[in-house]
Amino acid sequence: MPYQPRPGAAFDQIDTPALLLDLDAFEHNLRHMATFFADKPTSLRPHAKTHKCPEIARRQIQAGAIGITCAKLGEAEVMADAGVQDLLIANEVVRRLASLAERAKMMVAVDNPANVAALSEACQAKQATLRVLVEIDVGMGRCGVQRSEDALHLAQQVIDAPALVFKGLMGYEGHLVMLPDAKERSSRVQQAMIPLLEAAELLDKHGIAAEIVSGGGTGTYDMTGTSAPMTEIQAGSYILMDTTYLRIRPEFHPALSLLTMVVSRPMPERVVTDAGMKVITKEFGWPEPIEPEGLVVQGLSEEHGKLLAEHPDQIDLSIGDRVRMIPSHCCTTMNLHDRLYVTRDGKLVDIWPIAARGRAQ
Amino acid sequence: MPYQPRPGAAFDQIDTPALLLDLDAFEHNLRHMATFFADKPTSLRPHAKTHKCPEIARRQIQAGAIGITCAKLGEAEVMADAGVQDLLIANEVVRRLASLAERAKMMVAVDNPANVAALSEACQAKQATLRVLVEIDVGMGRCGVQRSEDALHLAQQVIDAPALVFKGLMGYEGHLVMLPDAKERSSRVQQAMIPLLEAAELLDKHGIAAEIVSGGGTGTYDMTGTSAPMTEIQAGSYILMDTTYLRIRPEFHPALSLLTMVVSRPMPERVVTDAGMKVITKEFGWPEPIEPEGLVVQGLSEEHGKLLAEHPDQIDLSIGDRVRMIPSHCCTTMNLHDRLYVTRDGKLVDIWPIAARGRAQ
Repeated sequence: MPYQPRPGAAFDQIDTPALLLDLDAFEHNLRHMATFFADKPTSLRPHAKTHKCPEIARRQIQAGAIGITCAKLGEAEVMADAGVQDLLIANEVVRRLASLAERAKMMVAVDNPANVAALSEACQAKQATLRVLVEIDVGMGRCGVQRSEDALHLAQQVIDAPALVFKGLMGYEGHLVMLPDAKERSSRVQQAMIPLLEAAELLDKHGIAAEIVSGGGTGTYDMTGTSAPMTEIQAGSYILMDTTYLRIRPEFHPALSLLTMVVSRPMPERVVTDAGMKVITKEFGWPEPIEPEGLVVQGLSEEHGKLLAEHPDQIDLSIGDRVRMIPSHCCTTMNLHDRLYVTRDGKLVDIWPIAARGRAQ
Repeated sequence: MPYQPRPGAAFDQIDTPALLLDLDAFEHNLRHMATFFADKPTSLRPHAKTHKCPEIARRQIQAGAIGITCAKLGEAEVMADAGVQDLLIANEVVRRLASLAERAKMMVAVDNPANVAALSEACQAKQATLRVLVEIDVGMGRCGVQRSEDALHLAQQVIDAPALVFKGLMGYEGHLVMLPDAKERSSRVQQAMIPLLEAAELLDKHGIAAEIVSGGGTGTYDMTGTSAPMTEIQAGSYILMDTTYLRIRPEFHPALSLLTMVVSRPMPERVVTDAGMKVITKEFGWPEPIEPEGLVVQGLSEEHGKLLAEHPDQIDLSIGDRVRMIPSHCCTTMNLHDRLYVTRDGKLVDIWPIAARGRAQ
């Protein structure tokens, strides 16, 4: 049996490192986003790649989300197992998808004729129906077709394919969602989304309706998410937050933090914790210690964090004491943990399995 | 049920991304290290932080390792559950250790009097016995006492403490194990280990024998591992290898690779795979595509790898084709996966659970 603390445990009774979810902040984020979309022409289909946690997905749907976005088929399988329906896989996949389409309402992105043919064949064999979005590269330079004409041809191929239903378009402005300046971000997002608009218009000219147009992230939900042609927003990080998004999205609160323990204080200015790269990621910068204040991360090795106390005499920390820090990237940090320790007012209230963690296939 | 390919499956039948273990390379590494230590005064206690996989630990012990080193208590619990005995936790921990000491032969590092007192109390309460090593900072600047006198005082405290048995010293030269130049590495390692030698001599003067002196890594096993005062070497990465260690340790073979799939080839020079930061790490540099040759990684996003084909006309890759790459850091890459797909001659032969993955507490 893995380690299991009891509800009611205070922070200093929880073994570390432990990923904490502050329920008040979580519920604030849930409400804030739901309220925003309540009177908009677009809807929220939150991205589960951020949290990989069926309990969070259920609460997002309860709060008004129209479904869930997944990055991987394995994530979608876990969500379907947990009773979460209406799933978009915002990626190009083939295998095992037909089986999942038998038991959940599935939608998937395509950007290639061979992919469409394979999907159609697999779904026919299973007598399953699959909804399809054509992905357009809106400047991120990753997946997606490059031209409206290609989108039209793919849409026509999907319409002609047995077992597939054409639903619309997808374009993710991932290269813009973290631009620090809100004005620049907004204007560049409007520019970037023009290919989606043009493709929708071209489809319309050929009598094909793009009923769904999906995109958007936490950095752009109130830009991408308020005007045509968008109908769905895939924001993920808003529900947990991290230091990177907190800088540009102060309307959401930090719900996620990592509880760590001091394992060594070999000299007054150096605090060593039990939290290294295997429990918190650093590709967006060092995590930020928030409790106590006055510490900065100097480095992460595999299993240790090296922290600097800038005014050592003001930092009353001994071995066994706790240090709490906010990750710089919530999505990849969640991906390192199997369980989320849910807290309210500094006490453990629940443990939620991050059931889709590791489901990268 | 998570996805489960059948034994005999070829690479193109395994869903991706999948972490592969080449059994021939694995067995070569196992044999090479066992042969090296067969006629040395030191022994091998391989570090399981690298692989977190009980099946690998069992095979290391079968090949002559005297026990297993763990970074975390949770790892040691999984190893003990799997029947792996004689475990060193090369870290400072307290809670739950006494329970594990009841059922496995445990040894732990200390660098602080409060830690020694807490361990003694916990083990007394459980009527368990715990072996203890005193950790000395050999220049890495993380954990460990700074002076021989502190090591002596801790050793005396351990000897006086009920339920604890003083076994010796530990010092890990982690800041040196990856120095590219072998001569420089060797001479700096000899220098760095002097505090261990001095502490052992000081203890000896006071009638205390350091029966065990533990340290060393894959980069230094044949330097640290051949002379007094060392008795045990904690090398971990040698068994799997990665591009970082392959540069300085060509005597070991790459056993670990990540099997990925092409999900998009939007233009001839760009190949997009389904393997991003959530399945392969980059803190030691980009992973290296080895199959096919002629690709370089340009970037990893969360779920995608962006590869450049330098001579696009020579790269015959379409959507669905496989690309295999070697991680730059095996320990943190293993930490992202729940299962290891074991292959021989390009075919799947077994699946080993990475059972201690996520056991960071």
